[in-house]
Amino acid sequence: MVSATTSDDPRRSVKWEARRQEIIDTSAQVFARQGYHATGIAELCTVNGFGKGALYYYIGSKEELLAAIHDRVMDEVMVGADRVAAAGGTPSEQLTMLGDELLDVIHRYPDHVWVFLHEFPALTGERAEQFRVRRREYERRVEAVLQAGIDAGEFRAVDARLTAFAWLGMHNYTYLWLKAGGRVSARDVAKPFADIFLHGIATAPGE
Amino acid sequence: MVSATTSDDPRRSVKWEARRQEIIDTSAQVFARQGYHATGIAELCTVNGFGKGALYYYIGSKEELLAAIHDRVMDEVMVGADRVAAAGGTPSEQLTMLGDELLDVIHRYPDHVWVFLHEFPALTGERAEQFRVRRREYERRVEAVLQAGIDAGEFRAVDARLTAFAWLGMHNYTYLWLKAGGRVSARDVAKPFADIFLHGIATAPGE
Repeated sequence: MVSATTSDDPRRSVKWEARRQEIIDTSAQVFARQGYHATGIAELCTVNGFGKGALYYYIGSKEELLAAIHDRVMDEVMVGADRVAAAGGTPSEQLTMLGDELLDVIHRYPDHVWVFLHEFPALTGERAEQFRVRRREYERRVEAVLQAGIDAGEFRAVDARLTAFAWLGMHNYTYLWLKAGGRVSARDVAKPFADIFLHGIATAPGE
Repeated sequence: MVSATTSDDPRRSVKWEARRQEIIDTSAQVFARQGYHATGIAELCTVNGFGKGALYYYIGSKEELLAAIHDRVMDEVMVGADRVAAAGGTPSEQLTMLGDELLDVIHRYPDHVWVFLHEFPALTGERAEQFRVRRREYERRVEAVLQAGIDAGEFRAVDARLTAFAWLGMHNYTYLWLKAGGRVSARDVAKPFADIFLHGIATAPGE
């Protein structure tokens, strides 16, 4: 999946796309370190080793760069969610797999996720709307799994939306301490988190 | 509890302190809206309606202002934790009360919490260390309640530290959607969250 802002671009080629992704990743590091608003175009050009013209050629604008960082994370998150849906299984298994996938993305893209979670209010107009829609789409996936579990009698009759937020908070918040190359792997965290959450919403035996 | 940076200040008076708190609150709004790095001293003076001299008189520096915003949240959080400890009760009751108190602070101070969670890397030296210590102190309170529950056989033999992070994530992350004056109250969220979490870690009946 490629961001909507570039998919129809005639300049797009494998080489162009690879260079573009490189710029997105490098810029995510800079934004994560010093903030989106505090980072100027000139500095982005310096760290990426190109002139202003090249930034426009590959990205378009600073805000489009921010949108691309968001897309990079959301693309991965949605690919993971699609993989889970395709794998099938019970709602408990689905929720466990969703947690595995989400923590894997957070673990692999700490800078992008930092920028994603901190700087999204800087997106405006259509980009803000697109971001909101994609985020809501993922929340709906989590809610749907919870609702399926409730309907099947596998989960208690919790509020699916509020429970989805509880689950998202528990997982998303790991971006503050779950670091790539750190002592704890994504799987080390996903397993006990799934264990707590599934016990938390499971129908009691005999109910 | 007052921040360590001002408690020994001879200028401190009730009026001075009230004005200082007002400046902290107004500045928290500005930082939350446009970011700490992007907000200059001149702008802080304008929104607070005073000159540079007054900023130094009441706060000291922009970084000290950021530390004061952190302290304002952490003071409230720790007062809540002290209240819970004083109230006594079972570990399950303690954890429920901690959730009530934490969500109440997040609900009342959305701007401060936003700044608190997003801008803490801007703190340097002793202020960064003080912030880290206070945050760790609160995490230890949560861990201690979990460990007490495990020791008493009320909670399963989960990893208390990792479980504390799960609990903190679930609660802290509400800062993104739990708004003062919003449709959902802090209590509306705290109750189902405690329900999920306590079921999640409770010893199974008969164990």
